[in-house]
Amino acid sequence: MTADPYNKQYLMTAGPTPLPPAVSQVMAEPILFHRAPAFVEVYARVLQNIKKVFLTENDVLCFASSGSGGMESAASNLIRPGEPVVVARCGKFGERWKELAEAYGAEITDLDVEWGAKVEPEALERALADSNGARVVFTTLSETSTGVVNDIKALAEVAHAAGALIAVDAVSGLGATPIRQDEWGVDVVVSGSQKALMCPPGLGFASPNQAALDFAAESPGRRYYFDWGRTVKGQRKDPPDSPFTPAVTLFSALDVALALIEEEGIENVFERHRLLARATREAGKGLDLELFGPEDENASVVTAFKVPEGIDGSAVQKTMRDKYGVTIAGGQNQLKGKIVRIAHCGYFGAFDILTTIGALEMTLSELGADVELGAGVGAAQRVFLEAGVPVHA
Amino acid sequence: MTADPYNKQYLMTAGPTPLPPAVSQVMAEPILFHRAPAFVEVYARVLQNIKKVFLTENDVLCFASSGSGGMESAASNLIRPGEPVVVARCGKFGERWKELAEAYGAEITDLDVEWGAKVEPEALERALADSNGARVVFTTLSETSTGVVNDIKALAEVAHAAGALIAVDAVSGLGATPIRQDEWGVDVVVSGSQKALMCPPGLGFASPNQAALDFAAESPGRRYYFDWGRTVKGQRKDPPDSPFTPAVTLFSALDVALALIEEEGIENVFERHRLLARATREAGKGLDLELFGPEDENASVVTAFKVPEGIDGSAVQKTMRDKYGVTIAGGQNQLKGKIVRIAHCGYFGAFDILTTIGALEMTLSELGADVELGAGVGAAQRVFLEAGVPVHA
Repeated sequence: MTADPYNKQYLMTAGPTPLPPAVSQVMAEPILFHRAPAFVEVYARVLQNIKKVFLTENDVLCFASSGSGGMESAASNLIRPGEPVVVARCGKFGERWKELAEAYGAEITDLDVEWGAKVEPEALERALADSNGARVVFTTLSETSTGVVNDIKALAEVAHAAGALIAVDAVSGLGATPIRQDEWGVDVVVSGSQKALMCPPGLGFASPNQAALDFAAESPGRRYYFDWGRTVKGQRKDPPDSPFTPAVTLFSALDVALALIEEEGIENVFERHRLLARATREAGKGLDLELFGPEDENASVVTAFKVPEGIDGSAVQKTMRDKYGVTIAGGQNQLKGKIVRIAHCGYFGAFDILTTIGALEMTLSELGADVELGAGVGAAQRVFLEAGVPVHA
Repeated sequence: MTADPYNKQYLMTAGPTPLPPAVSQVMAEPILFHRAPAFVEVYARVLQNIKKVFLTENDVLCFASSGSGGMESAASNLIRPGEPVVVARCGKFGERWKELAEAYGAEITDLDVEWGAKVEPEALERALADSNGARVVFTTLSETSTGVVNDIKALAEVAHAAGALIAVDAVSGLGATPIRQDEWGVDVVVSGSQKALMCPPGLGFASPNQAALDFAAESPGRRYYFDWGRTVKGQRKDPPDSPFTPAVTLFSALDVALALIEEEGIENVFERHRLLARATREAGKGLDLELFGPEDENASVVTAFKVPEGIDGSAVQKTMRDKYGVTIAGGQNQLKGKIVRIAHCGYFGAFDILTTIGALEMTLSELGADVELGAGVGAAQRVFLEAGVPVHA
């Protein structure tokens, strides 16, 4: 870490993501008692406004937890010991569903897709047929470890055709790439506060529809903190009430962030993310960097590139962070040192991408790669100029 | 709610409690990536410094959750379906242990003590004898609903004599009234960030000793997010690592708060709380208000008074809040309208007590009680003058 204050810090990671100044500032205001009218108002407004990001009329259940707590709520409410489920996964975060299903004693049909590929609907269809009548499918919207975004609409259709519910980890994807819960009939969407919702980590979400709530209610017990029934009951009171002390500073932050999303308009938010991702992909082409995973306009959360032959991806990530102040992510597990991942989910604009690509070019050059300085930046600039920037001018 | 900015707001509730300005401000700084060296340093320091408040050498496991999440971790790690436990409770928060034990399928011996009384060691001894060989006792340090503080040292001795572990909810008590985990041999202490730790809600803690960790490890599964083994493994890495994205803004806040506690000295922190409680009790005597629960110098978290005959406690609480800006708590469940509760756990000094008693006197007078204005304030002032204020001058 340099102590030079002019070596400014840029956070290009998929959570925690940078916070808009208004979100940061509200947390420094005097703390509110959770039963005070002023907080009850914030809480009620958040419960309404967050539905517009989930694109659902379901209750969005809010937990003081990380995004994994939201996933745990889905596992503990939907899994019955010894009963079959399908885990359809294609990366590190999909593995978490498998670990959760193991912990809760499910009989697992494990659809384990190569990292960098999507879960194909046909593969899910076969896995469901192979399972012993699985009633639940667990899968991932945006697989943060690879940048891949799955076609949840198609996967939901396959699950429903087999009589199964589908629970989707949208922790990094929600608010960055569309998941139209009600339109697509997704039974449960799970998310967290620290990605495209532009808030600090510490809030987990789950939005079970009535079918999922009914299925959970058939098999009560073995859960308490994350029990959907308990939280639904509290949130449906007038005024709404959390069964446990809510994380009030994080709710105040989310209230401000949701107002920003509302102001931009959720479809415009998606459009901005698509543009940032396209510019990043074009920058990669300008630098002859190979995209990791399929080119996909919905893959607008994280863009991953293969590191050029002979260059250590960990050194790229470390140099960018320690020398230039730009924090991106490297590869995880078997991809360690082989890819770099640039996140652009949340509070990001065009010049965050130019900065990041600029630092990447300088770093690759320094590490001995054959790089034309400015070639990536120029490619991204052309995308932004063609699209018109500021994005919503 | 008045909109008059000079009707200043005072939070005298047992969580969320007021935050020191430095704690509030740090949350407005640019957010840190949880794997950035700057955050790893904060995280490692918090893990060390929080042990000094728990008065333990055990790992203090940190969860993104409310304090109830810390309790859930104890229940899910220590309860085995169908096996006997004792729940020793004396108020609303003790009930939570019972609900958790039910959810996790324990065979419960329910020691249900009248609200306002303590759990007596002899009663616990009998409950353990009546139980079918319970291996775990769940109880409460400071019962926030009544102000009662139990004698955990004595209860731990009784539990251990019967071969049982003891898990203690110290959510409101930790850092306000002593719980000397290692010295008293308490097996698990559970807490939360939003009380005497002077932070916002959103962090839950559990500090299992080796015996508790071993007992939990004998029966794995049925838990994931709150699994002690998983979190111990992460926190013991060098550098320490959280298995799930930690709530980074809350950790930064806790880092600042723990430095304040360290600077004051934990024994001085306890002494300050004892003084605040004594002054509050004396103020009650000056106003002829009957203390709810036994007079106890360790009951330094929340002071509860019976509301005078003919006065509605809910009206007292509402008038103090809406007219005078001083938020205290009323009674819960069967105590609704019958008691008022003044919390003084965390960031509180002498003049917070004078303000609160002043507002209480004005409110009682207005509601028709026979009150000598200034009599309570004067009694509290005498306590502070005798003890010397500022407390640590």
